[in-house]
Amino acid sequence: MTGNTLSGLLDEGDVAGLQRWLGEHPPHEIADELARADPVRAVLMFRLLDKDSALTVFEELDPGAQQNVLSGLRGKAFGDVVEGMDPDDRARLLGEAPAKFARRVLDGLSPRSRAMTAALLGYPEGSVGRYMSPRTVAIRGHLTAARALDVVRARGEEAETVYTLPVIDDHRRFLGTLELRDLVLSAPERPVTELADTKTPRVKATDDAEAAARLMQEANLLALPVVDSEDRVLGLLTIDDAVEVIEAADTEDVARQAAAAPLSGHYMSASVVQLARSRAVWLLLLIVAATFTVNVLQFFEATLEQVTTLALFIPLLVGTGGNAGAQAATAAVRALAVGEVRTRDLPRVAWRESRVGLVLGLMLAVVALGVGTLLVDFPIAVTVALSIVLVCCWAATIGATMPLVAKRVGIDPAVISAPLVTTIVDATGLIIYFLIARAVLAL
Amino acid sequence: MTGNTLSGLLDEGDVAGLQRWLGEHPPHEIADELARADPVRAVLMFRLLDKDSALTVFEELDPGAQQNVLSGLRGKAFGDVVEGMDPDDRARLLGEAPAKFARRVLDGLSPRSRAMTAALLGYPEGSVGRYMSPRTVAIRGHLTAARALDVVRARGEEAETVYTLPVIDDHRRFLGTLELRDLVLSAPERPVTELADTKTPRVKATDDAEAAARLMQEANLLALPVVDSEDRVLGLLTIDDAVEVIEAADTEDVARQAAAAPLSGHYMSASVVQLARSRAVWLLLLIVAATFTVNVLQFFEATLEQVTTLALFIPLLVGTGGNAGAQAATAAVRALAVGEVRTRDLPRVAWRESRVGLVLGLMLAVVALGVGTLLVDFPIAVTVALSIVLVCCWAATIGATMPLVAKRVGIDPAVISAPLVTTIVDATGLIIYFLIARAVLAL
Repeated sequence: MTGNTLSGLLDEGDVAGLQRWLGEHPPHEIADELARADPVRAVLMFRLLDKDSALTVFEELDPGAQQNVLSGLRGKAFGDVVEGMDPDDRARLLGEAPAKFARRVLDGLSPRSRAMTAALLGYPEGSVGRYMSPRTVAIRGHLTAARALDVVRARGEEAETVYTLPVIDDHRRFLGTLELRDLVLSAPERPVTELADTKTPRVKATDDAEAAARLMQEANLLALPVVDSEDRVLGLLTIDDAVEVIEAADTEDVARQAAAAPLSGHYMSASVVQLARSRAVWLLLLIVAATFTVNVLQFFEATLEQVTTLALFIPLLVGTGGNAGAQAATAAVRALAVGEVRTRDLPRVAWRESRVGLVLGLMLAVVALGVGTLLVDFPIAVTVALSIVLVCCWAATIGATMPLVAKRVGIDPAVISAPLVTTIVDATGLIIYFLIARAVLAL
Repeated sequence: MTGNTLSGLLDEGDVAGLQRWLGEHPPHEIADELARADPVRAVLMFRLLDKDSALTVFEELDPGAQQNVLSGLRGKAFGDVVEGMDPDDRARLLGEAPAKFARRVLDGLSPRSRAMTAALLGYPEGSVGRYMSPRTVAIRGHLTAARALDVVRARGEEAETVYTLPVIDDHRRFLGTLELRDLVLSAPERPVTELADTKTPRVKATDDAEAAARLMQEANLLALPVVDSEDRVLGLLTIDDAVEVIEAADTEDVARQAAAAPLSGHYMSASVVQLARSRAVWLLLLIVAATFTVNVLQFFEATLEQVTTLALFIPLLVGTGGNAGAQAATAAVRALAVGEVRTRDLPRVAWRESRVGLVLGLMLAVVALGVGTLLVDFPIAVTVALSIVLVCCWAATIGATMPLVAKRVGIDPAVISAPLVTTIVDATGLIIYFLIARAVLAL
């Protein structure tokens, strides 16, 4: 089995086999193998690539893996790679790297590339500026289609994309965007201003990159113009970078939703310690919060000693409440992320989720009533059933509204994770359960 | 507040205000408002749009909302919209619609559009064929760049995209892809075969759409050629559709991860009953599974009556185990979804996650030992601490491996939801807890 994989061939020291494998596979598959390998093997494999494919493969790696590979390169090999990178990719690599490494990269660059990279690094982390391509072909508004096409031919080789062309005035201010398609299909003498779309949205370089990427997705754009505070065109955010931004944001949300910190690299290349570290903080916070459930149960210990059978339904009750809360929280976080819900929808969300919780609670209460009567007795069953109705209603309401509240006060809504909601619902659910038990069982 | 929104203006019957609002907002924002509105309002708003923007807005809606709007249109307005849609969008709309509605749409089409749509509908749901654009400009391999550009000029108006051009032989078989950029920048006399990329991946129309979309993302492609079983070019999967496929798949995964069925439409336009229905099945299954925790506790009821204080730590213990399991399951599901983990990694994943669980368990055990000693007594604290180590280790291992096992046997790994893992860990965790309690407390 290992003989078919790159690292299997590496284990066997089969250089000819390795080179054959590398020649037969597309860059993104090679990049995937590199990302899964440990740093030493990754560098060994990378060195076997010819110069052209080396750069293509390198561009497909995420910044963590890029750093691993670069750390193992010296001299010209190092210089060729860093100089060949797109300025935005380079800025992203440096943004995450330690200062010493960043210095080495910057020293290996030509003055022009260094200036371009430094400019992008001037924008805050997570902003559009870090992801935009500064190398675009801007078209003056007074040109004809034929002249504009000449400009594309003269300067297109250098640009990252020529499919969307920003149209500018004499002061480089944004007038609209021009699609290369329209330019190619148009009559040569038509003025650019007639072909340009002046309604395309644009963003500032300091704007949030995720919001810009989602906007591109909603508006089906291949590239989004990026401007400065005086509306001068700085570059374009291209769809491949936008897709990456969205995937990274989704991966982060997914991790947060399970109460873990997002991993910076590839799952398979992360060490046990890295994985444990990404999950430890939340688990610690949650176990401390869960201590409150011990306090609640201590408070009701006398009731519990009187009727030990009440304890039998604790996991079922808190589990069900937790599940209902987790469902609601996850739905709300996702709806916020994709823009279906806004913070001002809070009252509507609370009202509908409380009814959803009620409907679900009533349905589950029927099951609990049956199970409880069958396994224990009717009064206990009634206690459990009533508790489930209230707990579900409560769980769905706070599960769905907490992410909106978090967003409104400026916290990432995804930190309202399923485990966090579950833990909160556990403690409050127990209070509801024992209060109902005391009433129903007349304790 | 409502005065600023489209539905606020609608409430006030302010037609002039509505038309001003529609004129000032880009299509994707108008589409978002329509998607949030109830069907009747959505149709009212849609009718106020002029013909050109109506189609653009319509294309931005998801199939559910499109159906709502179309159901409210008659005669020519209906025909214009369905005829103006891209064939792949139309196929997607019809794929989800009831038969009667689909018939009405097909009847409103020109014979050519009807044939094209029917062809796409012949592919299975979720396959590339349902999402591809059949309207592309294919270039014969023997042409020069100048001649190829003439073909683009002659036939480009009709095509959905001209940035990626499939290159074909005389039998329409796939030879490679040509970027419009290279065509425009190239010397006119160069042959197309020299400019084409013959290594671009391609997919079959019957392949899974999500896998194809992720491939595009990894390989940074704007369009992916789609072929039939004899390698003849059928169309292109474009990046905007790929992004939609990925977003829908991620939304589905997120919902599944919280043990809910994915909603087919917009969160805010879903009714309370629809929301409840999407969550009910899993909650029912899980409460039935949770009944097992009642059985476990009944089995240990004598132990519980002897030492009621054991009950105090049940929520903390099962909660912590559930959290550790949920973290591991979520990480594994996401890593599978983005292609970082494959099913054959199962042994490696199991081995590393068991160690991650051990590390986390040891850390949490220290907290539990402190809390337990402080609130109750040392022997109970030792019981809880030991249980936490074992439960965390077990939870992380099965949480991470279950999604891989699911995938191997052909089940969507995302159904291994955090609540499912939690429920399984609850029951097994209780068994571990009481067995340790009997040993430590010598009961």
